[in-house]
Amino acid sequence: MPGAQPNARTRLVDAAIESFAAKGFHGTTTRDIASAAGMSPAAVYVHHKSKEDLLYLISKEGHERTLRLVEEGVASSADPVEQLRAVMRAFAAHHARGHTGARIVNYELAALNEEHLAEIREYRRAIEQRMRDVVTAGVAADVFATSNPRMTALALLSLGIDVARWYRDEGDWAPEDIADHYCELALRMVGAAQ
Amino acid sequence: MPGAQPNARTRLVDAAIESFAAKGFHGTTTRDIASAAGMSPAAVYVHHKSKEDLLYLISKEGHERTLRLVEEGVASSADPVEQLRAVMRAFAAHHARGHTGARIVNYELAALNEEHLAEIREYRRAIEQRMRDVVTAGVAADVFATSNPRMTALALLSLGIDVARWYRDEGDWAPEDIADHYCELALRMVGAAQ
Repeated sequence: MPGAQPNARTRLVDAAIESFAAKGFHGTTTRDIASAAGMSPAAVYVHHKSKEDLLYLISKEGHERTLRLVEEGVASSADPVEQLRAVMRAFAAHHARGHTGARIVNYELAALNEEHLAEIREYRRAIEQRMRDVVTAGVAADVFATSNPRMTALALLSLGIDVARWYRDEGDWAPEDIADHYCELALRMVGAAQ
Repeated sequence: MPGAQPNARTRLVDAAIESFAAKGFHGTTTRDIASAAGMSPAAVYVHHKSKEDLLYLISKEGHERTLRLVEEGVASSADPVEQLRAVMRAFAAHHARGHTGARIVNYELAALNEEHLAEIREYRRAIEQRMRDVVTAGVAADVFATSNPRMTALALLSLGIDVARWYRDEGDWAPEDIADHYCELALRMVGAAQ
């Protein structure tokens, strides 16, 4: 269907992000989202079955985007050092820039229904797997050295995800400053020859 | 006042942690907390003015404990390498073991009232300052090398805090396994001579 519908959907998603960020998923009513989008509660149901459906959409888009960033970083080079640099740079900057959405995506997982959670977990597993592949490729190529590649890969993602928690737009550092320093930290964490 | 009062308070705090963890602060009612504690909603108000008051108590106790752990780690040695080891070990293990409470303490800050938030921010500043002091002491002693001690100190805390998000009691790693590996990662992040 053409016309205003895509705009209404986008407005609703933006309104849901704003509302979930301010009051948490469970503290947000469909009325809050409608009001933030300048629509009637009934209009919300034209586009989404439920509040959970909006959370799922936000989560799915967020995870798709993150997976794409990670895959682009891996594809940017055949050298694990350059791959890790590219992945960490994109991952850290993304969690700074998109911190409001990233907080919802990472901290409201438990509010998804079983089916949606299973689907989102697949994205998370894929993202973890890509990061682990970079670390193990570096270890195999003897350019990285770590006693626990799996935990190290998780720690690398963890470091980036937590940027969304502490990052403030009015802070001293731009997303690029964080991305730069986090590349250095990431290479040290995997024991890359400097 | 003697007798059942301390027990009722403890039961309410435990019930509040459980309820906030399951449904978020905003999604939890005083009735939920009372029910989880096996008490009447009226009984909750005998001990706490509000739901926010319970969140504040949980947050204050959590931050006091974390600050104490960090200070004990710093006091355990005069050598920045050993200090960082002790702090990171305690910090990471604490966020694994106490992950349910740590999630509330770290992710529900925005639900505190202004006065309480200001007080909790003081604890957080103190914790950050202790970690930064360890990193800068190591740089001054020429045993650490980092281009940005402040961001590195924040990243070290960030890594530990995020353990609370991903840690599962039924996972493959005990808190001690994480603590061990995170010590290694922390020393690498600060560029400690290995």
